[in-house]
Amino acid sequence: MRPAPQPLHPLQYEELVRRSLVEDLGAAGDRTGDALLAPGEVAAGRIRMRRPARVCGLEVALCAFRQLDPALEAEIALAEGADAEAGAEIAALRGSARALLAAERTALNLLGHLSGVATATRDLVRRVAGTRARIVGTRKTLPGLGALQKYAIRVGGGANHRFGLYDAVLIKDNHLALCGGVAEAVRRARRSAGHMVKLEIEVETLEQLDEALAVGVDAVLLDNMPPALLRRAVERVGGCALTEASGGITPDNVAEVAAAGVDVISVGWLTHGAPAVDVGFDLDPIR
Amino acid sequence: MRPAPQPLHPLQYEELVRRSLVEDLGAAGDRTGDALLAPGEVAAGRIRMRRPARVCGLEVALCAFRQLDPALEAEIALAEGADAEAGAEIAALRGSARALLAAERTALNLLGHLSGVATATRDLVRRVAGTRARIVGTRKTLPGLGALQKYAIRVGGGANHRFGLYDAVLIKDNHLALCGGVAEAVRRARRSAGHMVKLEIEVETLEQLDEALAVGVDAVLLDNMPPALLRRAVERVGGCALTEASGGITPDNVAEVAAAGVDVISVGWLTHGAPAVDVGFDLDPIR
Amino acid sequence: MRPAPQPLHPLQYEELVRRSLVEDLGAAGDRTGDALLAPGEVAAGRIRMRRPARVCGLEVALCAFRQLDPALEAEIALAEGADAEAGAEIAALRGSARALLAAERTALNLLGHLSGVATATRDLVRRVAGTRARIVGTRKTLPGLGALQKYAIRVGGGANHRFGLYDAVLIKDNHLALCGGVAEAVRRARRSAGHMVKLEIEVETLEQLDEALAVGVDAVLLDNMPPALLRRAVERVGGCALTEASGGITPDNVAEVAAAGVDVISVGWLTHGAPAVDVGFDLDPIR
Amino acid sequence: MRPAPQPLHPLQYEELVRRSLVEDLGAAGDRTGDALLAPGEVAAGRIRMRRPARVCGLEVALCAFRQLDPALEAEIALAEGADAEAGAEIAALRGSARALLAAERTALNLLGHLSGVATATRDLVRRVAGTRARIVGTRKTLPGLGALQKYAIRVGGGANHRFGLYDAVLIKDNHLALCGGVAEAVRRARRSAGHMVKLEIEVETLEQLDEALAVGVDAVLLDNMPPALLRRAVERVGGCALTEASGGITPDNVAEVAAAGVDVISVGWLTHGAPAVDVGFDLDPIR
Amino acid sequence: MRPAPQPLHPLQYEELVRRSLVEDLGAAGDRTGDALLAPGEVAAGRIRMRRPARVCGLEVALCAFRQLDPALEAEIALAEGADAEAGAEIAALRGSARALLAAERTALNLLGHLSGVATATRDLVRRVAGTRARIVGTRKTLPGLGALQKYAIRVGGGANHRFGLYDAVLIKDNHLALCGGVAEAVRRARRSAGHMVKLEIEVETLEQLDEALAVGVDAVLLDNMPPALLRRAVERVGGCALTEASGGITPDNVAEVAAAGVDVISVGWLTHGAPAVDVGFDLDPIR
Amino acid sequence: MRPAPQPLHPLQYEELVRRSLVEDLGAAGDRTGDALLAPGEVAAGRIRMRRPARVCGLEVALCAFRQLDPALEAEIALAEGADAEAGAEIAALRGSARALLAAERTALNLLGHLSGVATATRDLVRRVAGTRARIVGTRKTLPGLGALQKYAIRVGGGANHRFGLYDAVLIKDNHLALCGGVAEAVRRARRSAGHMVKLEIEVETLEQLDEALAVGVDAVLLDNMPPALLRRAVERVGGCALTEASGGITPDNVAEVAAAGVDVISVGWLTHGAPAVDVGFDLDPIR
Repeated sequence: MRPAPQPLHPLQYEELVRRSLVEDLGAAGDRTGDALLAPGEVAAGRIRMRRPARVCGLEVALCAFRQLDPALEAEIALAEGADAEAGAEIAALRGSARALLAAERTALNLLGHLSGVATATRDLVRRVAGTRARIVGTRKTLPGLGALQKYAIRVGGGANHRFGLYDAVLIKDNHLALCGGVAEAVRRARRSAGHMVKLEIEVETLEQLDEALAVGVDAVLLDNMPPALLRRAVERVGGCALTEASGGITPDNVAEVAAAGVDVISVGWLTHGAPAVDVGFDLDPIR
Repeated sequence: MRPAPQPLHPLQYEELVRRSLVEDLGAAGDRTGDALLAPGEVAAGRIRMRRPARVCGLEVALCAFRQLDPALEAEIALAEGADAEAGAEIAALRGSARALLAAERTALNLLGHLSGVATATRDLVRRVAGTRARIVGTRKTLPGLGALQKYAIRVGGGANHRFGLYDAVLIKDNHLALCGGVAEAVRRARRSAGHMVKLEIEVETLEQLDEALAVGVDAVLLDNMPPALLRRAVERVGGCALTEASGGITPDNVAEVAAAGVDVISVGWLTHGAPAVDVGFDLDPIR
Repeated sequence: MRPAPQPLHPLQYEELVRRSLVEDLGAAGDRTGDALLAPGEVAAGRIRMRRPARVCGLEVALCAFRQLDPALEAEIALAEGADAEAGAEIAALRGSARALLAAERTALNLLGHLSGVATATRDLVRRVAGTRARIVGTRKTLPGLGALQKYAIRVGGGANHRFGLYDAVLIKDNHLALCGGVAEAVRRARRSAGHMVKLEIEVETLEQLDEALAVGVDAVLLDNMPPALLRRAVERVGGCALTEASGGITPDNVAEVAAAGVDVISVGWLTHGAPAVDVGFDLDPIR
Repeated sequence: MRPAPQPLHPLQYEELVRRSLVEDLGAAGDRTGDALLAPGEVAAGRIRMRRPARVCGLEVALCAFRQLDPALEAEIALAEGADAEAGAEIAALRGSARALLAAERTALNLLGHLSGVATATRDLVRRVAGTRARIVGTRKTLPGLGALQKYAIRVGGGANHRFGLYDAVLIKDNHLALCGGVAEAVRRARRSAGHMVKLEIEVETLEQLDEALAVGVDAVLLDNMPPALLRRAVERVGGCALTEASGGITPDNVAEVAAAGVDVISVGWLTHGAPAVDVGFDLDPIR
Repeated sequence: MRPAPQPLHPLQYEELVRRSLVEDLGAAGDRTGDALLAPGEVAAGRIRMRRPARVCGLEVALCAFRQLDPALEAEIALAEGADAEAGAEIAALRGSARALLAAERTALNLLGHLSGVATATRDLVRRVAGTRARIVGTRKTLPGLGALQKYAIRVGGGANHRFGLYDAVLIKDNHLALCGGVAEAVRRARRSAGHMVKLEIEVETLEQLDEALAVGVDAVLLDNMPPALLRRAVERVGGCALTEASGGITPDNVAEVAAAGVDVISVGWLTHGAPAVDVGFDLDPIR
Repeated sequence: MRPAPQPLHPLQYEELVRRSLVEDLGAAGDRTGDALLAPGEVAAGRIRMRRPARVCGLEVALCAFRQLDPALEAEIALAEGADAEAGAEIAALRGSARALLAAERTALNLLGHLSGVATATRDLVRRVAGTRARIVGTRKTLPGLGALQKYAIRVGGGANHRFGLYDAVLIKDNHLALCGGVAEAVRRARRSAGHMVKLEIEVETLEQLDEALAVGVDAVLLDNMPPALLRRAVERVGGCALTEASGGITPDNVAEVAAAGVDVISVGWLTHGAPAVDVGFDLDPIR
């Protein structure tokens, strides 16, 4: 059974949601809703997935509605992390008509984007089922949205790589170009990194890999290696470090990459290319 | 000749870039660069498009580098709005090695995302060339990134629809459900909207369209109409209002939609589904 | 009947109110109230208009009291938009004595200022009753207070012009000085403005007006024209564009300006010159 | 000779100016200037007082222009604190045409408001020339603008009272209503206030005044007393405390109030009622 | 009886606490608690002073817990300002296990630091009991924490000196070096300072003191004077100004300094050197 | 040779410094400096350590001076990380007299606090010289100051533990109380933590240690163990995990703890108890 993904606390997104609503309202407010709807008018509606998708961002979306109507009533039909079919109802809302329509776009933009990331992740995860490989995202996130996007990857069944420059050492080709080779780079990094910090290095050849293994690292990023080379690299590592495949991963080749035996497959596309899921919000007809 | 798109002033993105860098540095800073590179070390490198794309976000990306190295030297090879071929160099940078590598991800994330939006827009614009139709984005933008995404659409040759709830009236199906029909909604909105505010209404049938034209609106959003119906709607409008097609637009059908004679085609996918362009940053070999 | 003005959502002013309270408390807090009043002490008091005025900003003022005492009880005697006589009670409050006295100034400063703007607007609106003219404010607002001031104009029975540089095109004399005449300016603006954006131009002579009408604009700002000239300008426009009178409008001449037949009269003085209404807060005697 | 008023450091207003510009630009930017003016276009213009006024806020206004064009050239013709005649040129600017026109309103709104406060203060100061009375403002300021408004009073030749609840004790009628009389209130305040904090009490009768003098205070606020009573109160105080007249002060009666011998006259109207000075910005004709 | 110290309003620390929690959670959240504890799991625990201390910051600490669990139940065993023995229970909490453990460090860091300041102050206050001297802190506070540290000094039985550069005049040796002696400095300051502002001057010799007394000041700071000299200085002042001893005060000499008869003893060490009190939080065993 | 400690980028402290200055200036500004010093007056002065100390925070302090005077000239006499003797000059500054005196306290508060942390760290590091033990700080930091305090520990020759809840897993006694023992806790954490995240567990007995080693962890925190027990624990670990001693570490016992062979000694006191270094700023006499 998939363990529950590490959740977010509202403190981690309330301010983002607030700013997003404030941006959308601007100084003039919701010209349309304010003109057409009476202040006290109540309405009810349903959030629906228009395409099959993994639900992600439901609490974030509800937070948007609640910031405009603290008395909002919400009945959740499909919980965070559930797999919705096309047309499936996610939640039924009841509250101020003005609030529902003014918060709709902020809520749906977030829900659609995060469900898009989670769904794309889930699809890759399914393709590597039965292997040891975990799907992880990268730092190719969008400004201000990184924590939410990383969370969506967890909801999709993936795991997280570094969140920023601050939480692990990852020596890449540009670093190597400047500091004279694998061994020297690892040596410097080892001396500087704290005892709770892991150290990974990107290698492009078996020679670099050998050099890295010789000095010792926690993980090796095997960059853009074709499956056959990947397989040899994994053998060479022999469990002495965690192996990560990266570069050019697509839904079509991810299973083959996983079959090479790597521990982790990192996919930037999850956070910069996965399309949003089409989510709708339809008011209930008035009886 | 395409007119120069309305630009952004640095005041509109400096704070976003700063927050993005601060997020990435965290409290511990760039563990890797700080360990491997000397404080005063200088490096040079080139930003390259790895795929054919329209360049968008170059000043935003340079802003990231400059916030970490105010003395950065940048030579721009392909200007904002240019169409780059695969592998084309966009800019050559020279500055603090630490700054270049610490700002790289923030800069490239923004450049890649905005170029992705601009490129997707450009491709749609090309498909409707020779028609009267303009491609526009929607409010399906990401929190905090709306102004930049709207700008990228302009760089792609498209135009902008509403930026938020505040800058125009757009009466949609959910509004109509609550306020009793097209005529009544338009009447209420007209009374409330200021004299500098345009009014658009979403219609799904020719009957609704007739009702809207009878009361008078600035624009009609023809929602999810098949091309034949669109054509009849455009004829019915007869130039008395601006016509907008929306819903289910894809690269495959956009030309057909444009051929129906609409003034504007709005495409949410540009801002919530266009994949980022793959942008690289490679340090020059040290001589 | 005057339609209810477009309201504000608390999200649009809560942060302003919070910052205002924090500014007033400073690091040392309310030295007087803290010294004289016990923490749990309860008091009751009444907000009163000391002069005849239109009430505006009541919810904003209550927001200040509630941020210091979330359990505040408020009974509203005269609703937002009502016309109060001198001495009229607006609201009766009951809550923490310390909170009441510490929030008083922030609350009353906002209530007095906004009621001042609304009252001044109402007075002008009354003077043009029976004409087609609407009174509108300008962008001559105070930093951070624009949205509230614009709202106060609506509560006063006026309407809003542009909120910022972003929500409409307004070509003024300084623009014309730089871009070679009315026709060229309108042409450039038309090409650049989105389809949901209105375009207005400021003209000082009938020649400029003719030029503007020839190329077509949504509205014309007739700058500083004496009534006779205004009347001729309105005739010339003949309903092909909205007409706005601006410049040198005073309570004394506004009726004459309106009688010239313009659609809109814009008055910067409403937001930069209308004096605050004198509002008092008196504690009830203790029984 | 009037001593130079205590100045402001840019750190005290840069952020306010930035937010004001960002508000005005919004997400879409300056639609008009961006459409009509080329990015590199240079223009020059002059800031002029349209009415006689004391200049205040010039550096704040220039700060707005400079935030949009860091290379702005400014030649100051009339320095901060100078008295300008109608039509007098204050400063000549040269810089990016787009920046000049986009920053104009933010700059002029601040300059006009602050000059309005300074001018109104100056006029009152002149009316009390030859007396010992100093004109001071109150806490009836606008949210976010208090520090600037207080500064404008200094530029007008006035002085400052408390800036907030934090920087002095001022016992008012509402406090007295709750804590049982003058002597008890002063006693409690004295015990609580730090050694660097002054203590003032508002009194409405000579009996209250006697009670205050008996326990000892730094200053007495003589609330709404007619001149004859004021004079008796000042005599009664006999120099043992600073005397402040407040309530109902107008340009017409201020000299009479001052003649009663008070040390300080506080006037809320300076910050909530003084109309902005009309300031213009005209581009130079192009040669 | 010690009068209740001037309290803080939550508005004065909520934002600091929120930022502290957000900093600690980062983008990845509480990796440990999220991994080990179920979302709905409830726990109970007790906050204990591990050393004898004066309790300070309890509401601030509870604010941290409540921001992560708004439904937290707290039973307070030892109120703010109480003197706890080693091991004494301060409060018993019951709420979300995840929230309790994620907020623990933020809450305890603040509680420990503020109790440390209050305890150190209390200890000095006790040493000067029976004299007229009050213990006060200085502006040697930490960025962002000044208001809380000043409050802790009040809870410890001390009083506050200036909060910032803004709330009183204090002429120090560096000022004197630049403006030509005591008399001239006081004269300039007197002319500039408002009527509600006190004026203090630092003197190092009896000659400077005489000069200060001759021109008149509200307080004199007797800098680094040995007790015998202090005593002579106090006599010289003879009650005409408030006397403050400062510089080199330690627990060992504070009583001797107080015995010299000064009104105020200022001790920077209270806010930059007092060690935090060791505070523990132990979960109750599960029954 | 001690490797250069990982530095801070100005982006990581500029905003903190700005807020600190703004707090200190308040709305009224520097009443003393503004009254006594002319705007253009220039002064020079020297920052000196009054006690022997390791210099830390020099760039942060200079940042404060430069925010008030961008043209400040600074000559650094003792670089960051140097060991200063009592009285040693650290830097000579020359710039606006007003700026020097207004920024002094903010600058010195930061410099004194950070040098205090660095000096205390250095002293502990010296005591464990010749052992394998590294001195590290904990999360017992002050709100908003964590990144700077962690940096000061590095400048003192120490290393960093976790920065927050986000960058490593640390299972403590409170966690164990809730999730049923060491093995289960590690199992859950292992499943949840990403591949770049280290996992440490706090143990109080050799039995718990054995259990932890059996399931495998990256590090063990040996809590409050007396030296003899520590030694046995280190032997038991036998290099299979990193060993950390924590709890009750003092300058007196740190060498004994280090001699037990642990890899890391964590000391909360460094950030919540180390007294600030006394730093002075004296203006040069005017020639």
